[in-house]
Amino acid sequence: MFFTPHLSLLNSAVEANRTRSAWTGFAPIAPPEPERAETLVGAYDGVTLQLSAPTSSVVTADEISPYTEKSLNVTYAAPSVEETLDGAVAAADKLRDAGVEERVGVCLESLRRIHRRGQEFAAVTSHTTGQSLGMACSGSGTNALDRGLEAVAMAWAAMSRVPETVTWQQTFGKNPVTLRKRFRPRPVGTALVVACASFPAWNAYPAILANLATGNPVLVKPHPRSVLGTALAVQVIREVLADAGLPADAVQLVVDTVESPIAGDLAAHPATRIVDFTGSQNFGSWLERNSGDALVFTETAGVNTVILDSVHDLAATLRTLAGGLSLFSGQMCTSPQNIYILDGGVNTADGTVPRDEVVTALRAALDDLAAAPRRAAAVCGALQSDATLRSLDSLAATAGDTLVRRHTPYAHPDYPQARAVTPMLIRIDPRRGHQVPNGEQFGPVAYLIDCADRDAAVEHATASIRRHGAISSYLYCTDDSAIDAIADAYADAGASLSANLVSSMPMQYAAAYSDYHVTGLNPAGNATLTDESFVAGRFRMVQDRRQIEE
Amino acid sequence: MFFTPHLSLLNSAVEANRTRSAWTGFAPIAPPEPERAETLVGAYDGVTLQLSAPTSSVVTADEISPYTEKSLNVTYAAPSVEETLDGAVAAADKLRDAGVEERVGVCLESLRRIHRRGQEFAAVTSHTTGQSLGMACSGSGTNALDRGLEAVAMAWAAMSRVPETVTWQQTFGKNPVTLRKRFRPRPVGTALVVACASFPAWNAYPAILANLATGNPVLVKPHPRSVLGTALAVQVIREVLADAGLPADAVQLVVDTVESPIAGDLAAHPATRIVDFTGSQNFGSWLERNSGDALVFTETAGVNTVILDSVHDLAATLRTLAGGLSLFSGQMCTSPQNIYILDGGVNTADGTVPRDEVVTALRAALDDLAAAPRRAAAVCGALQSDATLRSLDSLAATAGDTLVRRHTPYAHPDYPQARAVTPMLIRIDPRRGHQVPNGEQFGPVAYLIDCADRDAAVEHATASIRRHGAISSYLYCTDDSAIDAIADAYADAGASLSANLVSSMPMQYAAAYSDYHVTGLNPAGNATLTDESFVAGRFRMVQDRRQIEE
Repeated sequence: MFFTPHLSLLNSAVEANRTRSAWTGFAPIAPPEPERAETLVGAYDGVTLQLSAPTSSVVTADEISPYTEKSLNVTYAAPSVEETLDGAVAAADKLRDAGVEERVGVCLESLRRIHRRGQEFAAVTSHTTGQSLGMACSGSGTNALDRGLEAVAMAWAAMSRVPETVTWQQTFGKNPVTLRKRFRPRPVGTALVVACASFPAWNAYPAILANLATGNPVLVKPHPRSVLGTALAVQVIREVLADAGLPADAVQLVVDTVESPIAGDLAAHPATRIVDFTGSQNFGSWLERNSGDALVFTETAGVNTVILDSVHDLAATLRTLAGGLSLFSGQMCTSPQNIYILDGGVNTADGTVPRDEVVTALRAALDDLAAAPRRAAAVCGALQSDATLRSLDSLAATAGDTLVRRHTPYAHPDYPQARAVTPMLIRIDPRRGHQVPNGEQFGPVAYLIDCADRDAAVEHATASIRRHGAISSYLYCTDDSAIDAIADAYADAGASLSANLVSSMPMQYAAAYSDYHVTGLNPAGNATLTDESFVAGRFRMVQDRRQIEE
Repeated sequence: MFFTPHLSLLNSAVEANRTRSAWTGFAPIAPPEPERAETLVGAYDGVTLQLSAPTSSVVTADEISPYTEKSLNVTYAAPSVEETLDGAVAAADKLRDAGVEERVGVCLESLRRIHRRGQEFAAVTSHTTGQSLGMACSGSGTNALDRGLEAVAMAWAAMSRVPETVTWQQTFGKNPVTLRKRFRPRPVGTALVVACASFPAWNAYPAILANLATGNPVLVKPHPRSVLGTALAVQVIREVLADAGLPADAVQLVVDTVESPIAGDLAAHPATRIVDFTGSQNFGSWLERNSGDALVFTETAGVNTVILDSVHDLAATLRTLAGGLSLFSGQMCTSPQNIYILDGGVNTADGTVPRDEVVTALRAALDDLAAAPRRAAAVCGALQSDATLRSLDSLAATAGDTLVRRHTPYAHPDYPQARAVTPMLIRIDPRRGHQVPNGEQFGPVAYLIDCADRDAAVEHATASIRRHGAISSYLYCTDDSAIDAIADAYADAGASLSANLVSSMPMQYAAAYSDYHVTGLNPAGNATLTDESFVAGRFRMVQDRRQIEE
């Protein structure tokens, strides 16, 4: 019932995936005013959401707004492993038998309804993740919806490439044999989607919808401290399923606690056939090893590097870089972390700028941001977790003379109690025995790494990618043939590369339908948004063939 | 250098995959005369084949012709795990940098050269696997080459669906931002292909070539008692690689012994990123659990069922079925095993035929075959392994009054010492306490299962599929709407279904470009020849993007 009305949207998304050019399926969402956002979130205060198969267990999640420091006070049904897996099985046949178009229609209608409630979703996202309302409308709003639509379109295209029927004729000996064949895509089984705390929609929408489009019942397990945004998405999908006459339990919310996590048990259960995970490298690796023969798709974390070699306009470059470090307080998987600055300084159109000056200028750009609280609030948002702040405090306390800039609080114009800081800068020189951090340092901290020259920087960065993984890598270099060679070196290390991003586009912006997110070729994860391998294994083909009498 | 000359072949294969209609890329191979076949095989007597990175180890394989009982006496270099993995790494960069067209060209040229030597390959196949020369020219000849080409075409199409470049433009704020993006498919790493003893080419060609086309160095590990056919294919590919200026070690042969198997060590090694396996369910499951985070593609085994409900022409049906049981002595993964015959007998155009008469007629059809040695030789070939014969002997000795027909030797016209039998029939009734075999009984043995009615047969067969897996399932039923319902039941059990095959086409024939082989939805394996999931994960995309100055 929902397929035909959205067919033109779907076709446009398929075409955008094919050409990989700029396109969006969703009009911009205007951020709500802060008071309005609080009202929208407050509507769930004291509410119990039942978004799974029946259970008597409930959990009042430990969700605290990073802006108001108030508990959201939302209670969720918390089904056990068995209850939720049984619920998935009970829903499976009807979901499967609904067929591809019906299921794809449900996915598209769900995206549309979430978009229509964009301000409400943004408000909830902001008060659970710490994203600014602007980012919650774009990054976790339209961009996440686009990534979801991208995945639905990829799944639809993959299933559509197989003809439904063929009349097949071949001669054996002297006799022609005619077979009528049917080919039908079938789901593989129950799917688990584990979402992260700070940016859940962007990865969860593609995984949930790719599973749903291909007919697999989905269990959605949000981070226990960042539930409500994902819960509302699940609620919308369940409503659409019901409207389509399909069992709502085809998509269930599974809520656990930090003390009693459930994801490992669900993933390792033989009934779980697909696992999508966004989160830590440790648990991602555990899942890849311990999910039996289930399909496992991971996006974990990496160390994103920047090499500053040569630029046309240093001021603009440093503005972009300061913005990149600050955007959502470095809590994005695409945030830069390790910035290589060469002994020879940075070549610019106006001559070489010594490294010390570059460092000073970058620090100044961050100081400017801290001094402009309204802009800082829009860019930085807040820290999702208190643990991140504590880890920054501890880093600063031990950084000694490598500390270039402390993570400085900014005065959030709307929420004085917000967990709001501007980025920390640490400057190290491995040649002087400074330790390069052993992996991702989550949150707003960048390491400025003194480095001999461009080749040494490339060598160090690609070695880091091989060891720690990377999701995005950045280069500033005015020599196009050098970029080619460096892109090759990064590709050999399994990483993509962005060069010379100096603009109003945030450097870590990854465009749905165009930018592949996560290569699958380094330790930062094995799942690419959205290549064909992200969708191909979620369904299989069954066929029947019958001989036609001559 | 090899791409352009074969482009039209490639395009035709892509189109055949798309339409799934009948097509072949290879002209029929005329079987050689037996003496000629022996000469072709004898040319390798005493030869040492070095088809890997350098090693000082050699193995004279335990290859005994099932026809002559003579040792093939071929010695192979037997590199260690480290030697062969190092060899793969040494070849990897050049293979990767050769690019898609060059690698696909190597695949296509290799198929062409193997085809050109079709009689030699057939002779070797016959004297290692026991296939008749006719089957070795078709099933392991042109059909296997077609399955190889099918996989190359799928991989090529998947890589080709991604544009090489795009100029991407989007407005942020008021400013248009233009990025030039490149997308490049990259291999994931060293691939292991483990082939089986009786039908190696059919699965090994697709796996080897899908890996090669996508740029992954390949280690090919044949069954230690059936090496030479696979070795020659590897030799051809290595020659083509060398002719293309690429390292021959991009494809290596790894030979082990039954006493010191190497496949587990290779598969579990972290450097191995892809594993393709054809063989037992036990080892296939072990691989799925123990290959770390490598991609694992398996085709193992299942219990293929036949339901005899109603037919137009019983004699023709039983001829087809007798042929299906006899073809290559039941040693094909598509061979029927469990045949359900209903209490009410079989409905035919001429009335109902009681079950006892059906059993008698089937036995008679097999007796006729045994009495026609030249036809029996062409159909049955020989048993690859002495263990199969011993297992048949043991089954017959314990079958008691369930034994309907012993596996009867036939007098092979060319090789009196051939390990040559016609199929055994065992008739059981689970309602009378008879044990249904607990899985595949490899070789020429069929179980005739007395069954109440069609519904009971479908229920029993689909339960068997869920438990033991199935690669092909067969139904004889003249009611088309009943076939629809039964096809649904089989699909729900994760199985494909062939109905009413009564013709000159062997019932277990699976057509490249058209018939999906293995659904991945039951215990008979997870790899489908050839769906998109068979190729999609073997490469990943890296991209680079650079901003264009306005």
